Amino acid sequence: MSKPGYIYLVGAGPGDPELLTLKAARLLDRADVVVYDRLVSEDILDLVNPFAERIYVGKSTGRHSLKQSEINTLLVHLAHSHQHIVRLKGGDPYIFGRGGEEAEHLSLHEIPFEVVPGITAAAGCMAKLNLPLTHRGLATGVRFVTGHMQADAMPTHDWRSLADPNTTLAIYMGVKTMPLIAGKLMEHGLSGNTPAIIIENGATPEQRHFQTTLDHLCTDLDRMHVNPPCMIVIGRVLSLADRLSLPATRYMVDDTDQSISVLSDKALHYAKTA
Amino acid sequence: MSKPGYIYLVGAGPGDPELLTLKAARLLDRADVVVYDRLVSEDILDLVNPFAERIYVGKSTGRHSLKQSEINTLLVHLAHSHQHIVRLKGGDPYIFGRGGEEAEHLSLHEIPFEVVPGITAAAGCMAKLNLPLTHRGLATGVRFVTGHMQADAMPTHDWRSLADPNTTLAIYMGVKTMPLIAGKLMEHGLSGNTPAIIIENGATPEQRHFQTTLDHLCTDLDRMHVNPPCMIVIGRVLSLADRLSLPATRYMVDDTDQSISVLSDKALHYAKTA
Ligand SMILES: C[S@@+](CC[C@H](N)C(=O)[O-])C[C@H]1O[C@@H](n2cnc3c(N)ncnc32)[C@H](O)[C@@H]1O
Ligand SMILES: C[S@@+](CC[C@H](N)C(=O)[O-])C[C@H]1O[C@@H](n2cnc3c(N)ncnc32)[C@H](O)[C@@H]1O
Repeated sequence: MSKPGYIYLVGAGPGDPELLTLKAARLLDRADVVVYDRLVSEDILDLVNPFAERIYVGKSTGRHSLKQSEINTLLVHLAHSHQHIVRLKGGDPYIFGRGGEEAEHLSLHEIPFEVVPGITAAAGCMAKLNLPLTHRGLATGVRFVTGHMQADAMPTHDWRSLADPNTTLAIYMGVKTMPLIAGKLMEHGLSGNTPAIIIENGATPEQRHFQTTLDHLCTDLDRMHVNPPCMIVIGRVLSLADRLSLPATRYMVDDTDQSISVLSDKALHYAKTA
Repeated sequence: MSKPGYIYLVGAGPGDPELLTLKAARLLDRADVVVYDRLVSEDILDLVNPFAERIYVGKSTGRHSLKQSEINTLLVHLAHSHQHIVRLKGGDPYIFGRGGEEAEHLSLHEIPFEVVPGITAAAGCMAKLNLPLTHRGLATGVRFVTGHMQADAMPTHDWRSLADPNTTLAIYMGVKTMPLIAGKLMEHGLSGNTPAIIIENGATPEQRHFQTTLDHLCTDLDRMHVNPPCMIVIGRVLSLADRLSLPATRYMVDDTDQSISVLSDKALHYAKTA
C-alpha cells in the first residue's frame, strides 16, 4: 500500500471567517479535499481553494448526518486516495468537537495527522460582546461544560462542583437540558441572581444575545425561541456588562405576546456607525 | 477634544505566529501603534507593519513591567494621539489576560474598542501534543484556572470543586503554587494516579513537555527546571497519550543527577521527518 496522505484536524472558529487562524486558512488553500460539518459556514468555505473536493458530513434536510464511526472510516479512506486532507470543524476540534475520537482512529490506522486549534465558541461569543471569561475579583477561572448528556457515557455532572460562584460557566449544547442544569445549580447553592447570558449564532452577522439571571434563564430561553448554535454563559463576570458598553436598549420585550425582539448585532453595528 | 482612535484588544495565541487569527494579522498590518508584552514573540512582531510604533510594556532586565494601571492610562493616552491602536496579548485577551480590566478602563473613558479573541495557551499546547481537552467517557468538560493566588482578590480556590475527575484541569501560572494545588487536589479526593502533563513554551520551536501523574507532578517540575511560560494540565483525558502517537522515547531520565533531558519538539520534528 502506498504512503497515506496527511490529515489536518482543523478548528474553524465560531463563525466569523476572520477568526480562522492563518494556519487554517493556508491549509484550506492547499487542501485536496475538505470534510466539514454543519457549524462551518458558507463564508468559511469560501476560503477553500476551488479545486478541492468538498464533503459535507453534517445533518441536512431529509438525511441524517454521518455517524462518528462513519466519519472515522471516511477519513482513513480519504488518506489512501488524497495527499492533503482537511477535516474542518466549528470552534476548536478538541473542545466538544470529537476531534479526539478521530485522532484515536487515525492513530490506530497509522495515518499521520496533526491538530490545528481554533477559537472555541465561548471565547468567540464573549469577545464579540466585550465580556471577559475571567476577571480579577469576579472569576478565578472559566469552565466549559456540555449540556448534552443523554448519549454521553457519563450520565450526570458533579453539580456541587459546577455551582462554584468564582468560576465562569460556559455551557455548550445546553438549550434542551437547561431546565435541569439551572435547577441543579441553584439547588447546589449558586444564587438565582447570578447573571447569565444567551448567545445565539455568536460571531456571525446573525448574532443575537440576551442578558438575564440564572433564575430567569429558562423562561427567557423559551421566549427568545432560540435556534442553534446557542451558547449559555453563567457567572458573576457578566455583571461587567453594565460597564463594558454593552448596548442596553437592544431588547424590546413585548409583554402582550411574551416574546422578545432582539436586534441582531449586524443591525446594531449599522445603528452605531450611522 | 478630537474624536479618539479605536483600540483593538487582540489575542496573539500561544506563540506560533500561524496561530494568529486572520483578523489579528490584518490589524497588525494596519496598526499605527502596537502595545505588547512579554508573551508576544519576535516571530509574531514580524507581522506588524514596519511603520507602526511599538511599545513594550512587559518585564525586561533591570526594569519592571508597567503596572496594569499604567498600561490603562497609556492606552487612553494613545487613543488621543493615534487612530488605530492594537493592544496585543499572548493567548486570548480575556482568559487570564487582564483584558477585562483594560476594557473597563476604556469604557470609562469612552474610548471605542473591540476584542479579538485568540487561541488560549491550553488549547494551543494540547493541540500540539495531539491531546484533546474533552473526550467522551473521559472528560465532560475542561476548566481553566489560575495558580496565581497571592495578588488576587480571592485568596483560595474551592478545592472540592476543582477535584472533579470528569473535568480536564488546565492550570495557568501554576508552577510556583503547584505544591499547594497538587496537595489540595489529592486531599479533596483526586487520585494521585491522575495523569498530568507539563508543557513549557507550548506551540513554539522550544516546546518541551513531560508526562507524569498528579502525585509526581511537583518532583518532576523541579527536575525539569522549567522556564516560563509553562502550562500544567491534569486529567484522565491525558491517558489518551499512549494511543495518540505521542512519542514515548522522548525523555531520558538520568538517575545519577536526577535531572530530565527532554527533546524539544523541534528536534523531534527533525528526527521524525529524517
Ligand atoms: C458540538 S459543539 C462544538 C463546539 C466547538 N468544537 C467549539 O469549540 O466551539 C456545538 C455547540 O457549540 C456551541 N456553539 C458553536 N458555535 C457557536 C456559535 N457561533 N454561537 C453560539 N454557540 C456556538 C453551541 O453551544 C453548540 O451547541
Ligand atoms: C498571564 S497568563 C496569560 C494567558 C493568556 N491570556 C492565554 O489565554 O493563554 C500567562 C500564563 O499562560 C500560560 N501560557 C501562555 N503561553 C504559554 C505557552 N506558549 N506555553 C505554555 N504555557 C503558556 C502559562 O501558564 C503562563 O504562566
